[in-house]
Amino acid sequence: MLAPWRSPLARALHLNRSLVYARYVQLATVRPDGRPANRTVVFRGFLNETNALKFVTDTRSEKMAHLHHQPWGEVCWYFPNSREQFRLGGPLTPVTADTVDESLLKARRIQWHDLSNAARSQFAWANPGHPRDPQASFSPPPPDPNQPLPNFCLLLLQPVEVDHLQLRGDPQSRDRYWLQESGEWQQQAVNP
Amino acid sequence: MLAPWRSPLARALHLNRSLVYARYVQLATVRPDGRPANRTVVFRGFLNETNALKFVTDTRSEKMAHLHHQPWGEVCWYFPNSREQFRLGGPLTPVTADTVDESLLKARRIQWHDLSNAARSQFAWANPGHPRDPQASFSPPPPDPNQPLPNFCLLLLQPVEVDHLQLRGDPQSRDRYWLQESGEWQQQAVNP
Repeated sequence: MLAPWRSPLARALHLNRSLVYARYVQLATVRPDGRPANRTVVFRGFLNETNALKFVTDTRSEKMAHLHHQPWGEVCWYFPNSREQFRLGGPLTPVTADTVDESLLKARRIQWHDLSNAARSQFAWANPGHPRDPQASFSPPPPDPNQPLPNFCLLLLQPVEVDHLQLRGDPQSRDRYWLQESGEWQQQAVNP
Repeated sequence: MLAPWRSPLARALHLNRSLVYARYVQLATVRPDGRPANRTVVFRGFLNETNALKFVTDTRSEKMAHLHHQPWGEVCWYFPNSREQFRLGGPLTPVTADTVDESLLKARRIQWHDLSNAARSQFAWANPGHPRDPQASFSPPPPDPNQPLPNFCLLLLQPVEVDHLQLRGDPQSRDRYWLQESGEWQQQAVNP
């Protein structure tokens, strides 16, 4: 069942569809030393009929180590055209070659297939974040679209708390949504 | 002395000057329960001749409680026109009415004065994030530009680690900068 924040989010995506970077969001995680980390990732749509947001990442990236320590993430998503912000917090689930669930493995294969050649090639690059390797090739032959590289990770964010701020309007408006233990979403208007 | 990442950051600001939202950044902090938080804030320039980034916030906002628990923050700054990202991590220092340092108090007064009437008025709004108060006024008379409201906070980020990723170029390029105990900045090219 679609969560109640899906409808305003779909509207924001529509209003900002002219901007390719309106699908770029900032994902915060927590480092093993307890300090925050923050980077831009590309929204890849929702997992099938669920409310889980899809991203892709490299198992060699730092954020994978963060998730062992603290699986929670928070996405901040600002939409420039409509001047609104969504904050989506919840557990992050990495789907890798080692994942057991067959339906998730299938989603990983489909996601790999749906990437561009350029995006797939990045997973064949030298170890990200390591000192620049002058020998390393950054133009490897394009990987097989039907066979995800072992370091390819489909990353799922399952929001349990969402904060929607609309800067347009006088006054501004702000709504909080949170998932209850019963599985029902609650919604409340809060002061902006 | 200007840190070595100031020059590429100044260039990015120049290349993106047509976009008002190129001065909006995402600031990650850590909640008292150890989970990350992430929200958009407006870059207000650098503090005098230092490398500290200025933001403003409300002492009633959640992020102030986060800083008691974990003073570290990380800003993610994506520039759409030039397709590059800066990640800036370091301690956050709130400058409030209770701050003792006279030069910081002066910076707080100047920052308050430099805000628009609309921005100053937000500090006279009802408690942010609390259930929407139907009686609350969101159009109070504009506060005195020469007298910061008690809940006005100048927030300083003193970066000690910066990661600069440029998506343009084939291959992409990525540089890490970090502040050593000696007070000198180190720089290293890393794999994108």
